Amino acid sequence: MVKDFLPEGWGVQGERGIAFVVTGPSGAGKSSVIAEVLRRDGRLTFSVSATTRPRRPEEVHGRDYYFVSEAEFDRLLAAGELLEWTKYQGHRYGTPRREVVSRLQAGKDVLLNVEVRGALAIARAGLPYPVVLVFLVPPSWGELRRRILARGTESREALEARLRIAREEVRHIPEFHYLVLNDELERAVATLSAIITAERTRLVPWSR
Amino acid sequence: MVKDFLPEGWGVQGERGIAFVVTGPSGAGKSSVIAEVLRRDGRLTFSVSATTRPRRPEEVHGRDYYFVSEAEFDRLLAAGELLEWTKYQGHRYGTPRREVVSRLQAGKDVLLNVEVRGALAIARAGLPYPVVLVFLVPPSWGELRRRILARGTESREALEARLRIAREEVRHIPEFHYLVLNDELERAVATLSAIITAERTRLVPWSR
Repeated sequence: MVKDFLPEGWGVQGERGIAFVVTGPSGAGKSSVIAEVLRRDGRLTFSVSATTRPRRPEEVHGRDYYFVSEAEFDRLLAAGELLEWTKYQGHRYGTPRREVVSRLQAGKDVLLNVEVRGALAIARAGLPYPVVLVFLVPPSWGELRRRILARGTESREALEARLRIAREEVRHIPEFHYLVLNDELERAVATLSAIITAERTRLVPWSR
Repeated sequence: MVKDFLPEGWGVQGERGIAFVVTGPSGAGKSSVIAEVLRRDGRLTFSVSATTRPRRPEEVHGRDYYFVSEAEFDRLLAAGELLEWTKYQGHRYGTPRREVVSRLQAGKDVLLNVEVRGALAIARAGLPYPVVLVFLVPPSWGELRRRILARGTESREALEARLRIAREEVRHIPEFHYLVLNDELERAVATLSAIITAERTRLVPWSR
């Protein structure tokens, strides 16, 4: 037990819940990387976001997102039940505060897949738990464009809008702790898993 | 390339050399963990310390330590060639500055196995490279005692001295970044490797 050796008031982050916030431009491959990391790590739980965006064919309500109406999203907002929210290409995305906080309180680690501005909002929300900020990037701008096109769901205008947003988003990289290159799924998964393992052993003063 | 996305002046630590300083009480298992991590990670190099301590049967000069005379150690000290040095149970141990700095300058990561006070001295030496401080602990005080006894090279007095020193050393744990529990070699190796992988992706301002 590490406790045998630690001075009073000190611990490692893994003794309590940690919030791992993963973001990156649309097309960076966040969802694929996160799904695989979750599959391998039994101590991680996924925080499902609420969104007003229409469900894509491969997505499942309650697993990928809570797909809610505009009225329901308004209600969550008014009740202060969203830890962060953002509007992205006409749709709103939000993180239910209760979902995140109750897991952290129970000592579970929470993985969040959010847009860049949402990640920064969570970082600033003053959660009384460690928040680790990870930014995922594709191998190149050309590859990002190819990945968005490969989805086949985007108009020319939507593609260009995504790339413009991505260029704005990467300017916030210095506000993150880690930058993970998603050139190959297996490598990106291993790197994100390593970050999670490392942060669990990071020393912190619990007295704060 | 992560460079495609990073603002001017920013990078990830893995673009340059990182010093990983691993310490812990005598008997924590530093040498075994480090040997295995080095075997698996081709980007890591080991910084060999100089010592006036007699060589143990299994140790090799130039691989485990540079075994030097008291006079040679004096010369290294006088020439300012030691990044840190410490006296431990009557013997002196030091880290040759040139060995560490030249590797970091070449962009290689350096792993150092040093006593606790030496680790803290390296942290304070003001190296213009990232220095990551890892403290390794055994599963319990009882197990530490068993491991020291199992070496069979210790007198009763030397054992008690080691345990006294260890109790003083663990008081410095809060000055480290990571605490790794060496309850099982494979797990400790995986954890140290994860810390190394994670730190390579940590964002830093290079302009500093």
